[in-house]
Amino acid sequence: MNILLENGFILQHHDTSFAIKQNNIYISDNIISGIGSCPAGFEADQKVNARNRLIIPGLINSHSHAYMTLLRNAADDLAFDDWLFKNILPMEDQLTADDAYWGTMLAAMEMIKTGTTCFLDMHMFQDQTVLAATKIGIRAKVSRGLVGNAEEIGLTDTPDNESGTRTVPVNGYYKSSRLQEAFDEMKTAKKPNGLISFCLAPHAVYTCDTEYLKYVSDLAYQHHMPLHIHISESKNEVDNCIAQHQMTPVQLLDSIGFFQVPVIAAHCVHITEEDILILKKHNVSVVTNPVSNMKLGNGFAPVKELVQAGVNVCIGTDGAASNNSLNLFREMTILSMIQKGIHADACTMKAGETFNMATVNAAKALGEPLLGRIDVGMLADLAIIDLNTPQLNPADDLMSALIYSMNGSEIESVIINGQFVLKNHRFVNIDEKEVYEHVNQIRTRIKSGIRKGVNQNA
Amino acid sequence: MNILLENGFILQHHDTSFAIKQNNIYISDNIISGIGSCPAGFEADQKVNARNRLIIPGLINSHSHAYMTLLRNAADDLAFDDWLFKNILPMEDQLTADDAYWGTMLAAMEMIKTGTTCFLDMHMFQDQTVLAATKIGIRAKVSRGLVGNAEEIGLTDTPDNESGTRTVPVNGYYKSSRLQEAFDEMKTAKKPNGLISFCLAPHAVYTCDTEYLKYVSDLAYQHHMPLHIHISESKNEVDNCIAQHQMTPVQLLDSIGFFQVPVIAAHCVHITEEDILILKKHNVSVVTNPVSNMKLGNGFAPVKELVQAGVNVCIGTDGAASNNSLNLFREMTILSMIQKGIHADACTMKAGETFNMATVNAAKALGEPLLGRIDVGMLADLAIIDLNTPQLNPADDLMSALIYSMNGSEIESVIINGQFVLKNHRFVNIDEKEVYEHVNQIRTRIKSGIRKGVNQNA
Repeated sequence: MNILLENGFILQHHDTSFAIKQNNIYISDNIISGIGSCPAGFEADQKVNARNRLIIPGLINSHSHAYMTLLRNAADDLAFDDWLFKNILPMEDQLTADDAYWGTMLAAMEMIKTGTTCFLDMHMFQDQTVLAATKIGIRAKVSRGLVGNAEEIGLTDTPDNESGTRTVPVNGYYKSSRLQEAFDEMKTAKKPNGLISFCLAPHAVYTCDTEYLKYVSDLAYQHHMPLHIHISESKNEVDNCIAQHQMTPVQLLDSIGFFQVPVIAAHCVHITEEDILILKKHNVSVVTNPVSNMKLGNGFAPVKELVQAGVNVCIGTDGAASNNSLNLFREMTILSMIQKGIHADACTMKAGETFNMATVNAAKALGEPLLGRIDVGMLADLAIIDLNTPQLNPADDLMSALIYSMNGSEIESVIINGQFVLKNHRFVNIDEKEVYEHVNQIRTRIKSGIRKGVNQNA
Repeated sequence: MNILLENGFILQHHDTSFAIKQNNIYISDNIISGIGSCPAGFEADQKVNARNRLIIPGLINSHSHAYMTLLRNAADDLAFDDWLFKNILPMEDQLTADDAYWGTMLAAMEMIKTGTTCFLDMHMFQDQTVLAATKIGIRAKVSRGLVGNAEEIGLTDTPDNESGTRTVPVNGYYKSSRLQEAFDEMKTAKKPNGLISFCLAPHAVYTCDTEYLKYVSDLAYQHHMPLHIHISESKNEVDNCIAQHQMTPVQLLDSIGFFQVPVIAAHCVHITEEDILILKKHNVSVVTNPVSNMKLGNGFAPVKELVQAGVNVCIGTDGAASNNSLNLFREMTILSMIQKGIHADACTMKAGETFNMATVNAAKALGEPLLGRIDVGMLADLAIIDLNTPQLNPADDLMSALIYSMNGSEIESVIINGQFVLKNHRFVNIDEKEVYEHVNQIRTRIKSGIRKGVNQNA
């Protein structure tokens, strides 16, 4: 399938700056084959008039728990323990694989409708995430959230050789049932068109012990997969880690060689200057989730300081249970605003810097060099914005408009991997109403399950 | 015209809580004449199926400079002085009355499309604000921004009687040309259907001297109008006021009896505990503008502290030159989030509290007891939300959804004063594209004016 997008305003990265020019984009199969000049032999199967449209690289949501959409708005304005133990976990416990499919589908719908074309996910039921993502046509890097300890993986307290590297099974049997399931799901998942890839996701230092974390890092090393982990999200997590290990979570992970592979670290709210240097030294990518961090009362990540230290910073929404939206435009606006507010400096976090976090920085973090920019040879993941909206007029500084004026619903159409998945605000591959019916039925069921159960929120 | 909205979910205030129930709303002319039970003799001219729609009271934007939409995204990520003196003021200086009309129209479009049915405005050209608001059909409380000093109003340094109250002309001639224009414009403005009302708006303590502020307050007292003013927006403003008067701006205004009439005070970012007590004592309503305050590097208003002290707090967007959006849903989300973030407390600024700031609190501030709630006898200013959107599903806690999940574009239709002004996302009274053409032409002209002028931003 070849697509010609005619006369749109195209946002292109040029090193550290941007250019927006009116031009044609030529898409051959899943690749951008020309900008401005038509590639030899190109014949369009589809021509789309993109006049008065802004075409941007699809956004990348670098930290999500997609099917938590099922718990959206279910437990707000509560203290963390009430939120997690009395509400979220009891509801989550009732979710089935089929539920996860519909919840992920709802998440993908919201992300696509607000210009996100790729997301990094951490959760159970990763095979269902793959199914839903594939059905609607969104790109995803998927991981099963892992919790565990030395006992579970059959290890003693000491590593089995001097270098500290574990001998771990590559295609064999993992004693940890979660790990085994993770690898089984990776093997059986259908991965058409290169939309889906995987990583390993040990949950956090407070849910995995150091032996287990080291073991999973070694596995990632052997399988050439990145790691995805929560680090220093709450003050409690850091205080407890220091009490137990006399080290911050970042220092602890550094001490066990966890950062031997590319690591994508979500949150990093409560980190020290030394932590930042460690993250930079090991090229760890940090995913900031400003809304989730504020909404759960965790505070503000030191994003300006991370950027100044040269750390690769990306942006994510976290799950809908703690946000309660998966709209990266909202997240980008808010990130820029709070950094300006905290530092009392209107020049902090300029629009282009924030936009990079959702595009080129994310592509780097995910190890996907063909994502995040519009250029010849790149994957055709594009969001098309209708400029005929009040908030985008006057329409002469569109980079500012992207970060400071858009609310996300200006997205008119979305192309992922060279295919329209949203066209004129309508999904190409799925029935929107069917999804709403399913997710509302599921919500009614799990809420009623809580009311019947012992975990009722008094 | 009688309208029947059938089977919508209706959000109603009940004292300090809310109820959302499926029911019919009956509208007779501009008043809600029935909820649930049909008023005697009611015959609908228009029936609207509101199934799977949430109907809320129209939002009230309590601080705006509407036609600054013309400068939207024109000068971002700049230090305050560069922003104001090198960019905003030189552009603003070139605006004509006709420009103000189109800028206000664009603002009204954005506000209506995101559920705002009433706004409090401060600017020049208030007659143009009235014209544009009347044409599109939005409710507005309009004021001309006033700057001035004792000399301009022909006063000496001392008041002319012991009580300190000035004898000011009621229908006569004001020596201050701005004041004269303000009253002339009020007299000549066409105010159909009670959509338009006025207040007086001395700009701030750093642009008006104390004699002038007192004079305008006395005028407001005699004309039974509220006052609208900026207070303690920046740290600089407060530092300078203390250096000059040995008082904070709030203390200074208190000392001259400024608060003798209802006052709507925008910003109040840099205020003390004593200031808060003064504001409470005089029933001053505070309008918080969180995005503008962050975007210009002014910081975070002590909203939690104001609420705890019992001050009536409302919410505004400020002008689009410092926001750059007039979307109150975005503003409400962000206000809740930053208050939770700053206080590291997920229970701060619950969804309902934030919603009240854009509805009942604002109605109280503006002295409009028939606005802000859905009830029999109230003015029919309503926003109708389409629940068939990913971010509003599952749809079983709609108050949370309003504040934490909506981005504003879920607004499908808007009724103001008993008339549809937006129906199925389309404006009833204006041609949207005509407005875009005008505002883009104006922007091109004023930018080119700057390039030719001496104030060019290097």
